[in-house]
Parts: sequence; C-alpha cells; structure tokens
Amino acid sequence: MRPSGRKLDEMRAVSVETGFTKHAEGSAMIKMGDTHVLCTATIEDRVPPFIKGSGLGWVTAEYGMLPRATNTRMRRESAMGKQGGRTVEIQRLIGRALRAGVDRSALGERQITIDCDVLQADGGTRCASITGGWIALKLAVNKLMKAGDVTSDPLVDPVAAISCGIYAGQPVLDLDYPEDSEAGVDGNFIMTSTGRLIEIQMSAEGSTYSREQMNQLMDLAEKGVTELVNIQKEATA
Amino acid sequence: MRPSGRKLDEMRAVSVETGFTKHAEGSAMIKMGDTHVLCTATIEDRVPPFIKGSGLGWVTAEYGMLPRATNTRMRRESAMGKQGGRTVEIQRLIGRALRAGVDRSALGERQITIDCDVLQADGGTRCASITGGWIALKLAVNKLMKAGDVTSDPLVDPVAAISCGIYAGQPVLDLDYPEDSEAGVDGNFIMTSTGRLIEIQMSAEGSTYSREQMNQLMDLAEKGVTELVNIQKEATA
Amino acid sequence: MRPSGRKLDEMRAVSVETGFTKHAEGSAMIKMGDTHVLCTATIEDRVPPFIKGSGLGWVTAEYGMLPRATNTRMRRESAMGKQGGRTVEIQRLIGRALRAGVDRSALGERQITIDCDVLQADGGTRCASITGGWIALKLAVNKLMKAGDVTSDPLVDPVAAISCGIYAGQPVLDLDYPEDSEAGVDGNFIMTSTGRLIEIQMSAEGSTYSREQMNQLMDLAEKGVTELVNIQKEATA
Amino acid sequence: MRPSGRKLDEMRAVSVETGFTKHAEGSAMIKMGDTHVLCTATIEDRVPPFIKGSGLGWVTAEYGMLPRATNTRMRRESAMGKQGGRTVEIQRLIGRALRAGVDRSALGERQITIDCDVLQADGGTRCASITGGWIALKLAVNKLMKAGDVTSDPLVDPVAAISCGIYAGQPVLDLDYPEDSEAGVDGNFIMTSTGRLIEIQMSAEGSTYSREQMNQLMDLAEKGVTELVNIQKEATA
Amino acid sequence: MRPSGRKLDEMRAVSVETGFTKHAEGSAMIKMGDTHVLCTATIEDRVPPFIKGSGLGWVTAEYGMLPRATNTRMRRESAMGKQGGRTVEIQRLIGRALRAGVDRSALGERQITIDCDVLQADGGTRCASITGGWIALKLAVNKLMKAGDVTSDPLVDPVAAISCGIYAGQPVLDLDYPEDSEAGVDGNFIMTSTGRLIEIQMSAEGSTYSREQMNQLMDLAEKGVTELVNIQKEATA
Amino acid sequence: MRPSGRKLDEMRAVSVETGFTKHAEGSAMIKMGDTHVLCTATIEDRVPPFIKGSGLGWVTAEYGMLPRATNTRMRRESAMGKQGGRTVEIQRLIGRALRAGVDRSALGERQITIDCDVLQADGGTRCASITGGWIALKLAVNKLMKAGDVTSDPLVDPVAAISCGIYAGQPVLDLDYPEDSEAGVDGNFIMTSTGRLIEIQMSAEGSTYSREQMNQLMDLAEKGVTELVNIQKEATA
Repeated sequence: MRPSGRKLDEMRAVSVETGFTKHAEGSAMIKMGDTHVLCTATIEDRVPPFIKGSGLGWVTAEYGMLPRATNTRMRRESAMGKQGGRTVEIQRLIGRALRAGVDRSALGERQITIDCDVLQADGGTRCASITGGWIALKLAVNKLMKAGDVTSDPLVDPVAAISCGIYAGQPVLDLDYPEDSEAGVDGNFIMTSTGRLIEIQMSAEGSTYSREQMNQLMDLAEKGVTELVNIQKEATA
Repeated sequence: MRPSGRKLDEMRAVSVETGFTKHAEGSAMIKMGDTHVLCTATIEDRVPPFIKGSGLGWVTAEYGMLPRATNTRMRRESAMGKQGGRTVEIQRLIGRALRAGVDRSALGERQITIDCDVLQADGGTRCASITGGWIALKLAVNKLMKAGDVTSDPLVDPVAAISCGIYAGQPVLDLDYPEDSEAGVDGNFIMTSTGRLIEIQMSAEGSTYSREQMNQLMDLAEKGVTELVNIQKEATA
Repeated sequence: MRPSGRKLDEMRAVSVETGFTKHAEGSAMIKMGDTHVLCTATIEDRVPPFIKGSGLGWVTAEYGMLPRATNTRMRRESAMGKQGGRTVEIQRLIGRALRAGVDRSALGERQITIDCDVLQADGGTRCASITGGWIALKLAVNKLMKAGDVTSDPLVDPVAAISCGIYAGQPVLDLDYPEDSEAGVDGNFIMTSTGRLIEIQMSAEGSTYSREQMNQLMDLAEKGVTELVNIQKEATA
Repeated sequence: MRPSGRKLDEMRAVSVETGFTKHAEGSAMIKMGDTHVLCTATIEDRVPPFIKGSGLGWVTAEYGMLPRATNTRMRRESAMGKQGGRTVEIQRLIGRALRAGVDRSALGERQITIDCDVLQADGGTRCASITGGWIALKLAVNKLMKAGDVTSDPLVDPVAAISCGIYAGQPVLDLDYPEDSEAGVDGNFIMTSTGRLIEIQMSAEGSTYSREQMNQLMDLAEKGVTELVNIQKEATA
Repeated sequence: MRPSGRKLDEMRAVSVETGFTKHAEGSAMIKMGDTHVLCTATIEDRVPPFIKGSGLGWVTAEYGMLPRATNTRMRRESAMGKQGGRTVEIQRLIGRALRAGVDRSALGERQITIDCDVLQADGGTRCASITGGWIALKLAVNKLMKAGDVTSDPLVDPVAAISCGIYAGQPVLDLDYPEDSEAGVDGNFIMTSTGRLIEIQMSAEGSTYSREQMNQLMDLAEKGVTELVNIQKEATA
Repeated sequence: MRPSGRKLDEMRAVSVETGFTKHAEGSAMIKMGDTHVLCTATIEDRVPPFIKGSGLGWVTAEYGMLPRATNTRMRRESAMGKQGGRTVEIQRLIGRALRAGVDRSALGERQITIDCDVLQADGGTRCASITGGWIALKLAVNKLMKAGDVTSDPLVDPVAAISCGIYAGQPVLDLDYPEDSEAGVDGNFIMTSTGRLIEIQMSAEGSTYSREQMNQLMDLAEKGVTELVNIQKEATA
C-alpha cells in the first residue's frame, strides 16, 4: 500500500558514515533512504552572552539545503539574502532537541554548533538531522573527553527523531516525500533511548485527528526511535 | 502554589472586544490576563501563485510584537531588517492552525490574512493569537456570507489554542510569563470545538517528560479549549 | 463644508488613556478622532556613543503602523526587511520635536525611547504621535522624579503638534484622511505651550502657497496647540 | 561675525556647469561655495503604477553622498546595505519640491528621475540639490520640447531652495557647515521665482524660535531665492 | 620540498563520482586531494530576460561552502544575509568559464545552472568547481541529446581549470591550502582540451612576478589541464 | 578600423586633476577619454583586526558608479540594499592591485581606503580606478611623509593598469565601451613601472584565445602602462 512497498511500521534503510569531513570535531553523513544529511559538530570556547560566566555549555544548530537537493531547484538562501521561514523553524527545533539531551553543566562553558546540510532530500530531513546531529555531537564530545577537557559525559542518553503520519487512512512510520506530500496528519517525535519524550510536533493540514490516532503514531514512533538509538550507539561506540 | 494564585486547571480571565479597529474586515482585541493581542482579518481577491485557478481559498497569518509589549524593550524588527526566528515560527503556526479549520473550497479563491499584534505580553501570545485570530477570521467570513460572496460557511468548527505545562512538578493550564519562564515542559494545544486535534507542540527545555504527563496536559488542554470555544461563539454570534 | 461637518477651526475629539500598557515606564493611548496611536516611553541607563560622558540625556523615537491600521492592508515593514522612507522621515521628526522640549542636562545621562505605534489611522498620525509621545515621556520623567533619580524637571514646557492645511480653498485645522488626501497644501506645526515654535513643515503637492496663507495656518495651529496642551497637562497632572 | 566673513544676508558664490556628464538627458554641477553637487536627469517612458494610464507624468529624486565628500569618511550606503534615514528624508524632500513646480499633465505620461550626488559637502547640500536638480530637470524638458515630445512647457516657474538660520543670535542666509553645526534654528525654504512657497522646513535643535524670527528668516530666504532663480534662468536659457 | 611531498609538476589525486545526487539532471562529486566539491546541473526552460527570444541558451553558476568545510567554522552566508565578496567573485568566474566552452546556439533557448558546493576545502576550490562543473554540465547535456531536445552537441571541447603558483621560489602545480596560504604569486588557468585559453587570473599579494615566471606557470597549467581533460572525458563517456 | 579612429596601440587621451576634493588626504579625477573616475584616499589610524599589532599597514578600496554614469540609468546600489557582483569583484581587484605595490611595513600600522567613484563611464573603469587610485594613494602618502609620520616611502614603484583586447580580430590597446561590448577576448593588465606583473585577468566570452594572442596583448599592455606611469609620476611629483 505504501509507494515504497514498505510495511506500515517499517523504517527506511538507515546508514551512517562517521568522519565524513576531516576538519569538523565530529561529523556524520546519515542516509535514511534517499534523504542524505551531512552533520558536523564544531566546538568553540565561547558561549552566547546570556550564559557567560554561568559555567553552563550551549548546543545550537543550523540547517541548510543545497539548491538541488530537491526535485526542482530551490533558490539559494544566501542569494535571496535571508533564511526562509521553514529553515528557521527547523534549525530552532534541532537545537532545542539536542540541547534537551545534554547535561550542560557537565559540558562546561563551551558551545557546540551542529550544522545539518541536506545534500539530497526525500522527506524527513529534520528528523534525520536530529538523529545524525546527535551522532556528530557525541563524536565531538568523545574528543573532549579523550582530551580530558570534559570529565563526566554530558550525553548519557541518545536523542533520536522520527516522523509518523496518517497516509491513506493508515498510521505509517517514517514518511518519505511521496507519502509526506499526501499525508493529512504528520508528526515529528523526538525521544531519548529510554522512551522519555523531548518534543512532539503533530500537525494536520486540511484535516484533524483524534487522541486515539495520536496514540497510534506515538507507538510507531517509539518503535522507530528504538531502532535509531541502536544505530547511534553503534556509530559512536 | 501558582504565582497568580490560580488553581492548577484555572485559565486566566479572558475578554474579547470585537470591532476594535474600523478598517479591517474583522477584528478582535483578545485579552488573556495581561496578554493583549489585537487580531485583524483582511480579505483580498488574490491567492498565492501555487493555488491560482484551483478554486480554493487561502488563510495566512503574520505576527508581531510592539517593542514595549514586554518587560524590557525589544528592538523593532523592521529596524533590524528582518523578522526573528521566533516570530517566523509563531506566524507559521498560526497560519497552519487556522487553515486546518477552514473549508477552503467553500471559502472560494480569495485570501484572508490574519494579523496578530501583541500590544502587551505575559505568556501565551501564540495561543491568544490563534484563539483571537479565529474570531477575526470568523467575523470577516460572516461579512462575506452576508454579502452573498460565500454561500456555505467555510468555518463550521471553531479553532482555539491553549498552553499547558509542568510547573513546579504539577501540570497547569494556561501558563503566564512567570510560570512559562520556569516550566521545564510546555506545550501548545490547538483543537476544534469537538475535541479534534489540529496541532500539538510539546517541548522540554533541559528535561524530558513521559507519555503519562503528556496525557495529563492534554486533559487540561481539552478543558481549556472548551471554555475558549464558548467565548469565541459568543463573540461571533 | 468639511466632510466631517467640523468648523474650519475645529479639532477632532481628543481622548487620552494613560497607563495603557503595564510594562512601559510611561504610556498613553491617544485618540484624535479615528486616529489611534499607542505611545510608550522606555527609560534606559545608556546613551548614544556621541554623548557618552557628556552628562546630557537623549530622547529618541520610533514609529510604526500596524498592517491593517489603514483602509487597505499595508505590507509589514519587518517582512519587507526595512522601514519605508515615510516611516524613517516621521520618526526622525518625532524625535527632534520631543528633544527640543527637553532640558537634556536636567534629564541626566540616560535615554528615553518613545515608541509610537499607530493602531488605526485617519490622518494626522505624526502629530498625534508627538502630542501623545510627550505625555508618555512626561509620565516616565515623573517616575524618575518621584524616585529621586532626576531632581529638576527637564520638561518644563509641553510640546504638542497639529496639522493644518488648505482644503477646498479654505484654511482648516486638524486634517483627517479624506481632507489630507485632497489638500494641496498641508503643514505640521510643532509648538510649546507658550507659543514658541519648534518645527514647521509646510509643503505643497501640485500647487504653491503664499506667505499670507502660511500665516493663516499658523494662527489655526496656535489655537489647536493651546487646546492640546491643556489635554496634555490634565493627563499628566 | 560669520566664520567665512560673509555679510548676514550674503549667499556663497554660486556656479553652475551644465552638460557635466554626456549620458544624462540633463546634467548640472552646482557649486555653492565648497558644496558641490552633481545633478542629472533621466527620462524614462514609464511611470509608477499608481498613475499608469492617468496621462500625468512623474518626477522623483534620489540623493547620495560620496564616502569622502565629508571631513571624515562616511561608510558607503551600498556597503551598509541600506540608505540611512537622513538620505531617505532628503531625497523625498527633493522629489516633492521639484514635483510641485511641474505641470504633470503637460509633461505627459513619463518619469524624470533627478539624481543628486554630493561630491563635496560644506552645508546646504539639500538646497543645492533642489536648485541644481531643477536645472537638470529643465535641460531634460528642453530636450523633450525640442524633439516635439512635449509641446507645452511643464516648467513655467523655476524652483529654488536656500537655507537660513539663527547663528550666534543673528539671522543669516545660506549656512555653511561651520554655521550649520552651531545654529540652534535652521530652516530650508523652497520657493518659486514669483515668491510662492512650496515647502518650508524650519526646526530647532535644543531651543525654540518665535514667529518674528521665522519672518526674518523668510525675508532672507526670499532674497536668496531671487538670486538663485536668476542663475537658474541663465544656465537653462 | 612541498608540504605534501608532491613533485613540482604533480597534481593531487583526482576522483570523480557521477550521479552523486538523484534529482539533478547531471551531478558529480569531484575530489582533488582533500578538496571535495559537489557539482550539480539543473536544466530549466527559461532564460534570462536579456536573451529572451534570441534562440541562444545560457549557462550560469552558483558557488557555496558548507560552514565547516574549512578548518575553523565560517558563518553561514544565508544567516549573514548576503553572499560574501569572495563567493560572488568565484561564482561569476565559474559561470564565465563554462559559458566560454558552450555553443549557445546549439544548446537552444534554455538555461543550465551549475551549483558548486564545497563539502571540504583544502585549496583550489574554484578550479575543482570548474572542472567538476563541466562534468555535471556535460551529463545534463547528454540527457538533452538522448531525449532529442538538442541535436548537435553544444559542448565539443572540455573546459578544465587548475591553479599554479610560486611556492618557496619554485613554480608548482595544483596548490593545496598550506601552499596557497604561503604563495606570493598564484594563478588560475582555465583552458580547453586543445590548449586554447579561456581565462587567466594571475595575481600577486605582497610581491610581483615576471613574464618569464608567468610562462613557467602556463606550461605547468597546460600539463595539468591535459590530465584533467582525460578524467572529464572518462567520467562523461 | 576602431570606432574612435585610434591606432591599434593608441591609448585614449588621459588627464589627471589632483586635489579635486578638499576633504580627502589625497584625491584625483582621472579621465581616460570619456571615462571619468574620482579617486580619493582616506587615512585612518586603525587597521583590520587580522593585522592588529603586526606593525603592518593596509590598503583597501571601494568602487561605485553614479546611477547615470552610463547610457541608461542603473539602479542605485544603496537603494537595492546591496552591492552587485560586478562592484564587489572590481573593488577587490583594485584593493589587491594597489596593495601589491605597497611596502606595508614602511607604511606602518594605519589603513588607507581608496574610493573610486565613476562619474561617467565609457569602458575601462576598473583600470582607470587603479591608475587614478594609485595617484590618490601617493598623494596621501606624501602628506604622511611630509608630516614625518612615515619616514621611508612605502610606494617606490608606481602601479598602473590598462585593458587590452581582441577587437574585430585585431589586438587593441585601451578598449572603450563600443569596443569592449564587441570584443571576444578582453584583459586587464596591472603592472609596475619596471614592467613587473601584479595581476592579469584575461577572459574570453563566447570564444577562446591562444598563447600567442596573449603575448600580443601583453606587449600592448606594457606600452600602455609605460605611458600611464609617466602621467602618474608627473601628477604626484
């Protein structure tokens, strides 16, 4: 029933290549089916003004898409002179999500910036960015710990994200672009490895949904996040 | 226990003054406690390019805050040369939320823009904008129906929004600013008068939450939306 | 003869509501007929670089219009990415006008920013902004004096502004929008309570005027400012 | 008493070089003492949307200053990404002033853009721009008339502008920079050759003025404009 | 003598992976040592206004760098609100270079946009962009020819680019970043497979060079381009 | 054969007026035929952050064109909100070129900004800017040396620039606009008085060129630069 032939609760094939770029303190190319996102982590010894002197660290994120990551070419945001609303919304979500899984006191007064750049898009880029972004973040933190700059691991519990939605009347896991563009209800679920919730965004465009349907999607999401967390652990071991 | 002395499931006093401005096709000043938002609706006979010729209408929203709506003065976004990330995120949410409650085919090929301008802020401005924005939208649609330009009501079911969160370990309804700035978990719930869900955004900053807690907040939200819908119906009768 | 039925030298009904917003150090909603402007005053303990260390204070102003303050919706300046020429011109005028009535040495090295936001426009918004802005400024200064931060009143003489013009060949006081859009000559007169002049801007679009006509308008303006000053004194007593 | 040794009612030496640039339909380099402004006129066969089809023409102006026109280098506005408030205010004034002297029906449905670029500044750049801008405008119109594109002269009456102010307690004509930076009251007077008024802007910074003083400045301005108009007529004969 | 141990006339290892992204009409990931550039070609059925109706095609290019392509993170240009001077200069060069090798009449009235995005930088990104960009362009044109939309090949002769410079007093081929940052003279040479020149940019920073040195670099460049052209031919066969 | 009737190796008439503006530390109006560029030099006691404390000086350049310097009016870059790609490319070239001829250690830790503003354009504006910019720079340095602020001349060897191209199949010196818009190959050659090379930019649009042709153009350029250097020496003696 799904365009890809997947089962209702079947995620796309996921692969992770760490160390994709040589300059970043942590980097991972994550592929969820045909959605490919390059995530890099940059460590800096400065923090935003509002936490200066607090002893706490900060994690922030930026998101971008190459102009031809999509089926038709999109205008380059730098040429347009500003980041679009969708970009801003997504990068704020990624930052919030990753921050929620960080012990900022253990991290110490430094900032880690996660850049998520979509090289190829086929739906679910914000979830792939969070899942891959966590891997880049973890690799950077591992470097800090190895160097003795951080002594207690600020990233105890992995953070991963997956989309679910109602497609052709059925709850499905991990929407690809053909499904996403048809789905009336569509949510992003961000959780930790222990099933604790970090952020839920579930919205309907041109329809509504019931609490029962919401619970069905949450069950699917828990299944998906469990699988993603295993992949994250393997990639950062 | 709450700074305001309210009970856990007690909303702030809500008042609505319709017809606040004389030029707009619909307008409402909504006050939720000390949060005051002026919502106006503008009808235009043009639609965005991507639906031209489709026979469908469009509803969109813009959000702003006066510089001294807050405790300390914020820089004017027009002077900074761009809308901040928070503004963009909120106005996209308002637009999506209101659109979900519209029968765009019944509306016909026209656009209604809802402007939500915060004159005074004390938490919950995006929810007040959605609730008050729906009233302005409904008043504008009423005008279209009275004039015979629209024959079947495209707004059968009111849309309202309320925030809930976990404050001092307890689930509370309708966070004001002192609560909002302390709450570890905080959600915005957008629903119809019949309890159908349109959008849920529930996020944790520096903590996580369980499905049980999520369900407690949803129960509170249903209570709040029921009360708001009654106010909306009264204001637009 | 005037569209509103007013006499040639008759101002619109003026009302002032002080304390309109709770956060600002001073605030006033001024209504001149259907022109409604919310004026707020913000006190800050910093001054622009060019007077740092001089012991002198500074008063500046910003001006904005809500998108649907006018008969047809205007694009939001923050969304356009800059303030329009008219906005810039007006806010510079408001700042200059208010500054001229301030003893900057008595004010001491602090800045007061007057925000004038037009909620509804029907002509004369810049004059209403100056008249209402002075009230907000005075209320803020009163607070400083009450707290003992300022000991000698830097605002001895109220500053008010009124427009006059030649409409249908006749000199008229306080143009509303229907008159303003027809008037060939149109001026803004800013004066103190003692009739001293602060700024005159008198321009013709598509016509010219004589010195005699200028003097007629100045006579009208003096009458108007006298009435406005009484309202200002009452509002800030 | 004046830094330059001029008499109270003495204007600076004025020179005009027409045809300064070969591409423009009209051009004039005007020098008022050490203030040098290059004015060019560009004729285009299109008008702004709001007068399309009206049969009326349009005159507009743009103003700029080379970075080192002033004593210390100013940042280039194109590099800053926007025109400053002063620039916007001045170019709107120039446009209004020139437009007031044009019979837009005789001009016909075309636009003339006057560019005023200050090569060297020593006070009074906006007045020099208007006076020189009118010459460029007239030269362009002469070309249109010669070609038979315009049959009745739309520029019957020259428009010129001069500044006056109160310097060291005395009313003086044509302020140069050292005077302008000290003057408490300072006005720009735009008139026609027949003494009709087009625009007056008279403002005080840090002081006020009486109607009597205003009249003294107007007398000076009339004298100055009379002299300027003679120069304009000669240059465009 | 070279930091990398390469001989003076030895290029870095070059690899090309075509079809790197699935959406673009042509794509190639080119790696010249540690410099990795993703090049995509987008075909559109519209041309810039200035050649509309001419029957001629257009090729243009845009260039970008991911924030962490470099050793320290650079600010994202979309977040800064504009493309930097270096970016603009490079993308204009790429466009000119590729256009010079195109028979625009054979291409027909369509536009091909080449996006060159640097995923990892180690010197020579503009040359890699041109060499890889030509491959993406050729692959897109092959698709047009296969579909019969273009009947005569508009890309007869490959275009490739290589940098040469004077490093430690010696002429060297294909500078990497450590060499580039030390070289006093540094040039980019763009040629066709037959040794015809398209563009030379040879500049000194803090020194000068002789015609003899220029000729030495040109000899090296010819050697390099010959090797690159073979790789291009293989990749697009 | 050339539209102007000049011989193949004949430069346009060149004139230089130094001291064109009174405020700048050095200034020159350079005219190469109908191309007129005003060059000013500004000395400041600060340097860019990246050389602070190095004891070295900096020379940078900015380039602009008045809107009606060209045959049809161009939009003002400050009104568009950014400098175009061509502007950015040219001002970076001017800066690099002038810097290459400066002994930055002898200059000492100060910055000289060269502003090149085109008042009238007829081809070759970037070369005229470099040649005239060097004169302004030299005049400013002379002032520093006279004042004893700089003791050893940092500008031993003049820097000049000239364009050459292939027009109607023939190599020609100093292209004017009619030639430039037709030439298939076109180069800018920047050299010192002793024939040392600083920068070569030679590009083909819609064609290619041989090394032999390149050498012919270089011979022409050497002739032109020799003549320009003599003019520079005379102007700054």
